[in-house]
Amino acid sequence: MKTLTVNLKERRYPIYIGQKLLGQSSLLMNHIRSKQVLVVTNETIAPLYLEKTLSGLTDFQCETVILPDGEQYKTLETTNLIFDALLTHRFDRDCTLVALGGGVIGDITGFAAASYQRGVNFIQIPTTLLAQVDSSVGGKTGVNHALGKNMIGAFHQPQCVLIDIDTLNTLEDQQLSAGLAEVIKYGLISDAEFFSWLESNINALLIRDAERLTYAIEHSCQNKATVVAADEKESGQRALLNLGHTFGHAIESGMGYGRWLHGEAVGTGMLMAANLSHRQGHYSDEDLQRTQALIEAAHLPTTTPPEMNSQRFLDLMSVDKKVKSGIIRLVLLKGIGTSYISGDYDPKLLLATLDEFHHAARL
Amino acid sequence: MKTLTVNLKERRYPIYIGQKLLGQSSLLMNHIRSKQVLVVTNETIAPLYLEKTLSGLTDFQCETVILPDGEQYKTLETTNLIFDALLTHRFDRDCTLVALGGGVIGDITGFAAASYQRGVNFIQIPTTLLAQVDSSVGGKTGVNHALGKNMIGAFHQPQCVLIDIDTLNTLEDQQLSAGLAEVIKYGLISDAEFFSWLESNINALLIRDAERLTYAIEHSCQNKATVVAADEKESGQRALLNLGHTFGHAIESGMGYGRWLHGEAVGTGMLMAANLSHRQGHYSDEDLQRTQALIEAAHLPTTTPPEMNSQRFLDLMSVDKKVKSGIIRLVLLKGIGTSYISGDYDPKLLLATLDEFHHAARL
Repeated sequence: MKTLTVNLKERRYPIYIGQKLLGQSSLLMNHIRSKQVLVVTNETIAPLYLEKTLSGLTDFQCETVILPDGEQYKTLETTNLIFDALLTHRFDRDCTLVALGGGVIGDITGFAAASYQRGVNFIQIPTTLLAQVDSSVGGKTGVNHALGKNMIGAFHQPQCVLIDIDTLNTLEDQQLSAGLAEVIKYGLISDAEFFSWLESNINALLIRDAERLTYAIEHSCQNKATVVAADEKESGQRALLNLGHTFGHAIESGMGYGRWLHGEAVGTGMLMAANLSHRQGHYSDEDLQRTQALIEAAHLPTTTPPEMNSQRFLDLMSVDKKVKSGIIRLVLLKGIGTSYISGDYDPKLLLATLDEFHHAARL
Repeated sequence: MKTLTVNLKERRYPIYIGQKLLGQSSLLMNHIRSKQVLVVTNETIAPLYLEKTLSGLTDFQCETVILPDGEQYKTLETTNLIFDALLTHRFDRDCTLVALGGGVIGDITGFAAASYQRGVNFIQIPTTLLAQVDSSVGGKTGVNHALGKNMIGAFHQPQCVLIDIDTLNTLEDQQLSAGLAEVIKYGLISDAEFFSWLESNINALLIRDAERLTYAIEHSCQNKATVVAADEKESGQRALLNLGHTFGHAIESGMGYGRWLHGEAVGTGMLMAANLSHRQGHYSDEDLQRTQALIEAAHLPTTTPPEMNSQRFLDLMSVDKKVKSGIIRLVLLKGIGTSYISGDYDPKLLLATLDEFHHAARL
C-alpha cells in the first residue's frame, strides 16, 4: 500500500492506495470521531462493495443510504435524501459520512457533509478511476443545477481517502477510459514526462495492470495535491486543472447530464483546447498529433456531439464558473506539460475551433 | 453613524450602525467586487425598503428576488429560487448578494452565497432587531429541514453589515420584543452591567428611542463579535451564545416553524435555562426573579406552549446541534453575566424544570 499526504493550510490528510484495502478496519478507525457513521453509495456499487465496506466498520452505529446511479441524480433533491437519513437517525456534529462510489457519490456526499449542521467529517472511498484521480483530492463538493453543472457546492476536505485498486476490476471499459482522460490531463498541464510514460503504458492501463494503475493513480493524485496545496480556493494555479473542462461542461450540459460521461467530455474538451492553442500558434503540429493520438488510444471520443453547433457551445460556456465579468477564461497549452489560463485569446480562433469540431462531427 | 469592526482570522469586516443609512451608495460601494448584484428580500420588506436600497446601487447590474415572508420558507426549495435567479442572469463568481430583511432572509441569502459556485460575496442589511443583534455577526447561514431547525448550512462571513435603525420604525411590536430577547441574552451570558442597563432602559427601547436602540445594538454586536472572533467555528466559548436556544428550538420545531417567533422561543428558553440553573443550586432566587422580570418587561412569553409536554421537549432537544454523542449539552447560568456549557447536569432536575413549565402552561 502507498500512502500519499495532502498538505493543506488547516490540516493534512492521507490517501491510501493499494489492493485489498476495503474492509481493513484499521485504516478507517483513526479517521472516525464518534460511533455514528453513514455510508452513502448507489444502486450499482451497493451489491458489489457495500458489504465489504461495512465489514470494516462493525464497531460503529453504521447506517446506509443507497441513491440511484447517475449524474442526473447529482441534485439538491438527492442531497436532501442524505439529510433525511442523518436526521432520522439523529446523527450529531461528530458523525462521519463515508462516500462509497464514483465522482457523483463523492460530490453529493461531500456537499451533504459540508452542509449538515454546517459541516461534519467525511471519508472518500472512490470506486472509479475518475473519482480516484480527480475528486479524491481538492475538496470540491457540490451538485448540479438545471442551468449549470456543479453550480451549488462547497470546499470541504475529507478526513482520508481510501483507493482500493481492486474496485476497478468491475468498472466498465467506457468508465475506465473516462478516468484516463483526467490522468492524461495531468501530463498535459504540467508533466511532459508523465505524458510520455502514458504514451508507452496506455494499453497496459486499459487491461488494468495493477502495478501501472497504482503508479498512474499515485502520480495523478500527487500532481493534483501539489497544485491544490498551493491554491486551495482556486484563485490562481489551481484553475489549470480545468483544462478541457469549459468545453467539456458545455457538452455535458448541452447533451443533458448523464448522456456523456464527464471524462469523455473532458477528453474531447482537452482536444478542443489543444486545437485552439495550436491556432494561437502556441502548440506545435507534433504536440497536437500526440495529444490526439493518446486520447484516441485511451478509447476516448475525439469529436463533439453533432447536435451542438458553435453558438450552442458559446452560450453554454458563458455560464461556466471560470467566466469572469463576461469573458470566458480558458486553460490553453504552450506545449505538452505547459499550460496557462487566459481570457486574452482571439475570439475568432475560438469560433474557428468550434466550427472545425462541429464540421467534423457532422461528417 | 457608528462603525464596529469584526476581526476574524482570515479577514475583518465592518458593521455600520446609524440612521438614514439605506440608499447611501458610498457605504456599499467599497464592498462590491463586480457589477453583478442580486438583492434578496421578501414580500413584507420589498414595498418598504427595496426602492431605497436600490437607489444606493444604481451603478450596478442589479437584479432582485422577492421571497415569501416567514420562517416556514427557510428551506432548500426557497434557496433554489435564488440559484435560479443567479443562473438565469448568468451571475459569476465575482457577484455579490445583498440580504435585505430579517434573520430568515439573511440566513437563506448567506447560505445561497456560501454555496453558489462554492462561495460568492454577500452583504447583510438586517431590518429586524433580532437580525441586527444576532445574525449580522457570526457568519452562521442556513436553512431548516422538516426534522430540525438550521440543520443545513455553512459558515460564511459577509463583506459588511449595514444596520439602519430607521427600519425598526416599521417593525411590529412583537418582533421588536423578539429581538430584545437576544439583547437580554448578551447581558445574561457575560455582561451583568449591560443587564442592569437593560433593566433601566427596557421601556425606552420598547418605544424605539433611537439613541438607546443604537447603544443596545452596538453593545450586543460588540459582545457577539468578541466571542465569535475568539471561536469562529463554535468549538468552545461560542456555544454560550446558544443560551436558551436548545429549549427554544424545541418550541419552534414542536409548534411548527413560524408559529412562535425565534426570539420569543429564546426568551422562554432562557427562563427555562435559568430555572434549571436555579434547581442546580448555581443561580440565586434574586437572579431568577430579575431574569423573569426583565423578560416579562420586554413583553416576551414566559410560559411554554401547553401542547408540549416534557417528553416532547426531550425528544426535540435530542436532535439539537449541541448534542454530543447522545448527551444534551445546555448553556446554564452561575449568576447574571456568568454562563457555562455542560452535559453534566442532573437529568432529573431537567425533567423537573420541563414539568414545572408544562404544569404552569396548562393552568
